[in-house]
Amino acid sequence: MAVNYPNGKLFDAVSHLPEKKKKRDTIYSNRGMNLEEDINTSNDYYLLVERAVIHKKPTPIQVVKVDYPSRSAAIIKEAYYRQSSTTDYNGVYKGYYLDFEAKETNNKTSFPLKNFHEHQIVHMKRCNQQMGITFVLIRFSCYNRVFLLDSSYLIDFWENKLNNGRKSIPLAFIESKGFEIGYGFNPRLDYLVAVDKLLEMKMK
Amino acid sequence: MAVNYPNGKLFDAVSHLPEKKKKRDTIYSNRGMNLEEDINTSNDYYLLVERAVIHKKPTPIQVVKVDYPSRSAAIIKEAYYRQSSTTDYNGVYKGYYLDFEAKETNNKTSFPLKNFHEHQIVHMKRCNQQMGITFVLIRFSCYNRVFLLDSSYLIDFWENKLNNGRKSIPLAFIESKGFEIGYGFNPRLDYLVAVDKLLEMKMK
Repeated sequence: MAVNYPNGKLFDAVSHLPEKKKKRDTIYSNRGMNLEEDINTSNDYYLLVERAVIHKKPTPIQVVKVDYPSRSAAIIKEAYYRQSSTTDYNGVYKGYYLDFEAKETNNKTSFPLKNFHEHQIVHMKRCNQQMGITFVLIRFSCYNRVFLLDSSYLIDFWENKLNNGRKSIPLAFIESKGFEIGYGFNPRLDYLVAVDKLLEMKMK
Repeated sequence: MAVNYPNGKLFDAVSHLPEKKKKRDTIYSNRGMNLEEDINTSNDYYLLVERAVIHKKPTPIQVVKVDYPSRSAAIIKEAYYRQSSTTDYNGVYKGYYLDFEAKETNNKTSFPLKNFHEHQIVHMKRCNQQMGITFVLIRFSCYNRVFLLDSSYLIDFWENKLNNGRKSIPLAFIESKGFEIGYGFNPRLDYLVAVDKLLEMKMK
């Protein structure tokens, strides 16, 4: 059942469920953490060592009712999740504007495009027009392998899908065109190494 | 009275009050809209004409309790405002990472530094290290004059204040070092013209 928001936008309830309520598509992850947490702790580390300034954007929430039991204590009593109009992460690294989305799948041979939303693709295209560096971080949970893939490939697959093309990106394609990111201690997921490779490729 | 959050951060209740509940420090604004709304509508326009991709970040909210009357309808029943760790706006323009904060005052001769928070200054310094373009948009409500001021000046005044220096930036200083932004129809506040001047100055 589709439900309309106060702001008129359709609400994707499942993607907003708290982690523990989500049907996890990963059964035997090697680690307790998920991709989002790995990225967040890596961003904290990058901030600490002054390597980059990258933050996850807060989830947009439409506040309807707030109680003020006292002047300095505000309790939100009614609010709704809203659809974001951007990707989840952005920031600045060596003068470059970085913008990306992170997604996981339990699929073994390809990454389903249904993991992405139209507004995320549109946003990445807009950022590309402004010479931003946009990409996706993709995790294959069953192998615990993470890749950085330039958004241009994702956009191609997305537009091809709209013309009745295939509905997923093959792992073999991601292996060939993306940059694999190794897990480490600190940062947990050193994705800026892959960003450096991407920048090098783009500068050629 | 200061109140601690669930996340342990102090909460600045007043800055989170809904607009209409805020004690407005402007009495006779020439327009119905405020600086934030002027910037937001200008950003919408910039997006539409593909001139820049700049968004206001959602206010971070700590969700404590959510009801799911049905699978697709999530109602947040208890939540708290959290302190942001960044500025309000960021995005990409002609390959540059832009990051800024917008503030208004009803003061007539200077801009009080108490309008800024330590975390905003720290964030701008970090972005500067990464070669981001950071600044503040400052509105003197009683004159309805808006200026763009490079963050380096703000940071200087801020650090000077910590050493018992003056607690505000004189309007005369802002007039001399900042770039005034005119109001228009579309975009309402064409602040990218001032950003162009700032970029030109930085490239010299």
